[in-house]
Amino acid sequence: MPTLNEVALHAGVTPATVSNVLRKKGRVGAETRQRVLEAIAQLGYRPHLPARALAEGRAPTIALMVSSIANPFYPEFALAVENALRRKGQFLIICNTDGDPQTGRAYLDQIAGTLSEGVLVMNANLDFEDLRTTELRGAPVVLCMWERPLDPPGLPCVAVDFRLAGELAAQHLLSQGHRRIGAIVGSKVYGIHAARYDGFVDAMQAAGLDGAAAPVVYAPDTTQGGYAAARDLLKAHPDLTALFTTNDLPALGAMQAAADLGLEVPRDLSVIGITDIQLARESRPGLTTVAVPTVEAAELAVELLLELVEAPENGARGDGPGGARVCVTSKPRLVVRGSTGEASTR
Amino acid sequence: MPTLNEVALHAGVTPATVSNVLRKKGRVGAETRQRVLEAIAQLGYRPHLPARALAEGRAPTIALMVSSIANPFYPEFALAVENALRRKGQFLIICNTDGDPQTGRAYLDQIAGTLSEGVLVMNANLDFEDLRTTELRGAPVVLCMWERPLDPPGLPCVAVDFRLAGELAAQHLLSQGHRRIGAIVGSKVYGIHAARYDGFVDAMQAAGLDGAAAPVVYAPDTTQGGYAAARDLLKAHPDLTALFTTNDLPALGAMQAAADLGLEVPRDLSVIGITDIQLARESRPGLTTVAVPTVEAAELAVELLLELVEAPENGARGDGPGGARVCVTSKPRLVVRGSTGEASTR
Repeated sequence: MPTLNEVALHAGVTPATVSNVLRKKGRVGAETRQRVLEAIAQLGYRPHLPARALAEGRAPTIALMVSSIANPFYPEFALAVENALRRKGQFLIICNTDGDPQTGRAYLDQIAGTLSEGVLVMNANLDFEDLRTTELRGAPVVLCMWERPLDPPGLPCVAVDFRLAGELAAQHLLSQGHRRIGAIVGSKVYGIHAARYDGFVDAMQAAGLDGAAAPVVYAPDTTQGGYAAARDLLKAHPDLTALFTTNDLPALGAMQAAADLGLEVPRDLSVIGITDIQLARESRPGLTTVAVPTVEAAELAVELLLELVEAPENGARGDGPGGARVCVTSKPRLVVRGSTGEASTR
Repeated sequence: MPTLNEVALHAGVTPATVSNVLRKKGRVGAETRQRVLEAIAQLGYRPHLPARALAEGRAPTIALMVSSIANPFYPEFALAVENALRRKGQFLIICNTDGDPQTGRAYLDQIAGTLSEGVLVMNANLDFEDLRTTELRGAPVVLCMWERPLDPPGLPCVAVDFRLAGELAAQHLLSQGHRRIGAIVGSKVYGIHAARYDGFVDAMQAAGLDGAAAPVVYAPDTTQGGYAAARDLLKAHPDLTALFTTNDLPALGAMQAAADLGLEVPRDLSVIGITDIQLARESRPGLTTVAVPTVEAAELAVELLLELVEAPENGARGDGPGGARVCVTSKPRLVVRGSTGEASTR
């Protein structure tokens, strides 16, 4: 395959001129343009996007900042992002921050605006100040799964209505006759799962129950975290017939805790999660959950980010605070599997 | 933070000259060098590796080719690779091939030797011819977890003794009194798990059993694949007391199949896997498995690849076929959890 340099040599021009003709940019005389186009045709040159970008001192990559790609939710999201980027001729760089803002800042300093043309951020616990600095340096930033569409962050974002997800989960349990429901929240009290918990409380209130008074444990957003939280809840409140959990991993842990306490799911205890990760489909019984539109969120995030890379000034043409763009995904939806059933009367 | 361009301006030289001074390359007169070093000191410039690389038309990235980052083993490996790369100032691009050689080739054509300085390959079902072409274009290639250290592929690789892993798994079952053992192989008959199955057969023979005659099913390397294979095996051979599986995901599926057939693990049936993915630790009961040194393999692969990027000619200074380099990891080791126990006499 001929290179851009060979085209330049053949046409008797510089590689930069060939690049300008291809990108229809810069000032190139009509005769020179003609010579370059003929050289391209004669040599059968096909533009090689990454090589061309590198010749211009750019790299067609987008960075995805995650706390750890080994967390079971992120690979599914990263796969969807990578598929969407590939269709646009862009490549995906993965940055694991380990949840550490300093590690995140070091990444942003090193690659945003140089190696990567833009940054997607997924729950990586980054300082918003660092993200704004990144934008000012010319690398647009998009937050990938903002949890509160009505309370946007002042940075371009894709938002998922997670309050509704919590509400749908609680409504499902209520519709099956559950009244004594415990809640496991996979973040700190005002942390990223707070909107999901709000939805739970709202649904309980709407059913005439004191949702805010229902037993609740805040736990690490992991299988083990859910296991310990469920054990504590079920020991302290043996009359609970259902557990609402704000994420699938702690829900799977809660199911294990139930088994270890001799409770059969769903006969003795119903368990519901939020997200619908692959493991939710594979567990026994399958986990009832509220699915969030992961692939759609990934595609919207890529679309918004690449739009901002092309025209950064559009970032401030939205209706969010400071004018930042906000894309809202379609609504989460209930997926009923085997882990929930009619309330028992233990 | 001052840029390389600002240093150049301050010293009255081109950015390329500053880059040459920093890299101790090219011809730079003593006086000019002094002026550049003073500008660096005065401005407090810290070299920005990606920016510098881009100015030279390179990008400090390594591509990791995987069939799908959403397969539960790969994220753990990718995290270890990314951590190792970061320590060397390199960034990780993830390429999902979906197991399709053509998709893999398209990636290699687009980024190897331009956007990425080298390529790590993990079970992505790529044509070896494409990988050799990639090497010839100046982008070294390392196969990350070659399954047969004694039968290397003619390309630089990190090899894990997976035959030994299979042998250790079978020996563990034999040591607990199991004699009627079924095998689930997560690949085609002469596919990538063949070495693991060879180890199983060897251990059976060494114990005076006809290992090659033991019931065996070849299945997709997934939870569902293991589920279906185990159900078939246990229905056709109800006297089996243990299942040897060549990977953890099918082993987890086999445990689910046992539960659905009313068999308690390990009382009625022992199940063992190979790899030790995170899910093996989290299942109930925990999965007994033979752990392979994932992090070590990732680190060796990064080390070997970056060595080849620096000095590609060293790739052919190994003792493998065609002189290609082969690094062998430390040995796999047995991890006993709750899914195996003394043979029952159903």
